[in-house]
Amino acid sequence: MSTLAELRATVATLHAELTRYNLVSWTAGNVSARVPGEDLMVIKPSGVSYDDLGPDTMVVTDLHGELVEGALAPSSDTAAHAYVYRHMPEVGGVAHTHSPYATAWAARGEPIPCVLTMIADEFGGDIPVGPFALIGDDSIGRGIVETLRDSRSPAVLMAGHGPFTVGKDARAAVKAAVMLEDVARTVHFAHQLGTPHVIDKAHVDRLYARYQNVYGQ
Amino acid sequence: MSTLAELRATVATLHAELTRYNLVSWTAGNVSARVPGEDLMVIKPSGVSYDDLGPDTMVVTDLHGELVEGALAPSSDTAAHAYVYRHMPEVGGVAHTHSPYATAWAARGEPIPCVLTMIADEFGGDIPVGPFALIGDDSIGRGIVETLRDSRSPAVLMAGHGPFTVGKDARAAVKAAVMLEDVARTVHFAHQLGTPHVIDKAHVDRLYARYQNVYGQ
Amino acid sequence: MSTLAELRATVATLHAELTRYNLVSWTAGNVSARVPGEDLMVIKPSGVSYDDLGPDTMVVTDLHGELVEGALAPSSDTAAHAYVYRHMPEVGGVAHTHSPYATAWAARGEPIPCVLTMIADEFGGDIPVGPFALIGDDSIGRGIVETLRDSRSPAVLMAGHGPFTVGKDARAAVKAAVMLEDVARTVHFAHQLGTPHVIDKAHVDRLYARYQNVYGQ
Amino acid sequence: MSTLAELRATVATLHAELTRYNLVSWTAGNVSARVPGEDLMVIKPSGVSYDDLGPDTMVVTDLHGELVEGALAPSSDTAAHAYVYRHMPEVGGVAHTHSPYATAWAARGEPIPCVLTMIADEFGGDIPVGPFALIGDDSIGRGIVETLRDSRSPAVLMAGHGPFTVGKDARAAVKAAVMLEDVARTVHFAHQLGTPHVIDKAHVDRLYARYQNVYGQ
Repeated sequence: MSTLAELRATVATLHAELTRYNLVSWTAGNVSARVPGEDLMVIKPSGVSYDDLGPDTMVVTDLHGELVEGALAPSSDTAAHAYVYRHMPEVGGVAHTHSPYATAWAARGEPIPCVLTMIADEFGGDIPVGPFALIGDDSIGRGIVETLRDSRSPAVLMAGHGPFTVGKDARAAVKAAVMLEDVARTVHFAHQLGTPHVIDKAHVDRLYARYQNVYGQ
Repeated sequence: MSTLAELRATVATLHAELTRYNLVSWTAGNVSARVPGEDLMVIKPSGVSYDDLGPDTMVVTDLHGELVEGALAPSSDTAAHAYVYRHMPEVGGVAHTHSPYATAWAARGEPIPCVLTMIADEFGGDIPVGPFALIGDDSIGRGIVETLRDSRSPAVLMAGHGPFTVGKDARAAVKAAVMLEDVARTVHFAHQLGTPHVIDKAHVDRLYARYQNVYGQ
Repeated sequence: MSTLAELRATVATLHAELTRYNLVSWTAGNVSARVPGEDLMVIKPSGVSYDDLGPDTMVVTDLHGELVEGALAPSSDTAAHAYVYRHMPEVGGVAHTHSPYATAWAARGEPIPCVLTMIADEFGGDIPVGPFALIGDDSIGRGIVETLRDSRSPAVLMAGHGPFTVGKDARAAVKAAVMLEDVARTVHFAHQLGTPHVIDKAHVDRLYARYQNVYGQ
Repeated sequence: MSTLAELRATVATLHAELTRYNLVSWTAGNVSARVPGEDLMVIKPSGVSYDDLGPDTMVVTDLHGELVEGALAPSSDTAAHAYVYRHMPEVGGVAHTHSPYATAWAARGEPIPCVLTMIADEFGGDIPVGPFALIGDDSIGRGIVETLRDSRSPAVLMAGHGPFTVGKDARAAVKAAVMLEDVARTVHFAHQLGTPHVIDKAHVDRLYARYQNVYGQ
């Protein structure tokens, strides 16, 4: 099990994947991790450059977003992360970006159709759209949770806003954010010049089952 | 308050954000900062590679663009920066790029509609278009100022030319340039496959007020 | 002739070209090389980050995909690579990516038309589409081989999935993957605003013959 | 005046701008420089990776493309470069790429319209299309020269092939290649969602005259 110090380092480092894959501009995206066995989470501080993130700049809050440890104010999206952890006990990590192709689907309020084996593998079907919700209360968190509960997808496209992804840990949530932008982009390109073929549900199920059980080490 | 030496270093360094986010090609973009309490500004020299910028290559001009300090000729856009500083006392920094998506909206003379929470947060509504204006006199500066006065946006899309952004200091102006290209791109993508939903004015106002007051440290 | 140690190093290093040209996200692409003179291949392990690849992490399998040497499980695409080596003795290297533009053509099941001299040079004509095939048996490998046999192209766009490329060695297969994405992207752009002119077959033949014989050292 | 050793180093280094701005894939682009005062040019060797270029790998040919100095075969585009030097004495540098947006315009055989001040500044009007021409004799060189003679543009889009750019020296030719891709991309984006306004000829003339005389140091 991760100690808190290791988790701070892990979460800090994972933000570098957001910049590596061009999922974020300036400071507009964040990753968090649940502290295993405690009602706590580690999250990015608000408005701090990705260049300046390290274990010591990460902040720790409780699962209502109240600061527990750290010198900086937590991400302005902390309430949404906290809501997810309170209502989805299986989730150990959350990532939020405004990655451009995924956010374009979110701006139109359109799910990403399952037209690629990679979407079947990773997302188990169409990638769903959540409601338009304003920041400031539990609306965003509730929209995320209610949408993800009806889906196998670890990603939700919050309408007019951008994607949130979840995973068993922070690395899995970040992986989902990276793969989401990849498929959002490819399907965008595919639709620009025609209509790609939607994969049959039975094939999607086989691909998803295999990938979840066989892929990796 | 910044000393002039610090300001030269800050402005030189901020140009690296223009290249990091691919907002500029070759030497075609520039950042300036007002020298607090003086009728002076620090700006990029004309036609110098971003690789070769440092505190010593930055030039200082008065607010009519006349060279005060430095061995190099100031940016060919100096007159536009200077006009902004003369007419907008609250502005401490100006950035100019030809970032591709923002410039594409500028080429069509179309404002970027407020279809994303990020646009509401940062720009407080649609991102406006300024007039087509030729370089060589105060036309560009006047177009920028007249357009920004009617808007909460720190960014203006000068028609057929490209974006100018302003801020309380040079870092804020550069942040606006980065966020502008981000949303210009996402809204471009959204429009390629449909029509995104415009956010209600009341929601825009709430998002803008919150972001301007709560976000960051 | 390459020793096995050299081949492990070569294959590990070639994966850096996949990331350099943005052909892959996270761990979703792989390169293999036939071991000259033996019924063996060197391939990427499954689900391992490109940052962590080195000669020692590469795995060796036989040409039915059974692990012969190495501590990690081989790529989940190993069966497809192995099928290609069994049925195309002239092939010494295979690469597989989900590069976005090539995969968009694959999602629509459309071949890339030969509208650029670069396509004639490298691919000798249209870049063909292979069947939709599920992972888990020889379907993907068979689809690749049957498609490439009818074509001069070293690349096949597997429908709803992504591209596979082959070459006399792993470097040639990776080069084909890089050039494929380049032309997939350019032809995508060309089609977005009109219809490019297809190059006459006689010109294609002359370009292909020249490039295959004259280009390089 | 440059010595030959300096020119070899300059030409080698300038290739790094092609990769920095993503104008080339693998080995598919090249820069050359005329040796001042001599009927010689320095050019990239054929099929050599950009990672492996240095002063010593550059080759020297006469202005008919015959190797004069160097251990490697010259670029397969050498004949086109040589033709330009023989017929345009004012040209000191040539660059050739298959940069994706410029090549997409070339694939459709459409000139890039002068809808941006940057195009007026750098190219003095529309960026013209040259004929479709096969490699192997003087057809490409002749197409470049005949097209550029009717234009102020330092760039020509060779139909179905890609751009060639020229300049007073190799650096100017590379700058034109970089700026060409920048505007090809922006105008592509602009056309995707509407029709940008073409700048009046009188304004183009004023912008071009000013930029050629005032910009830079």
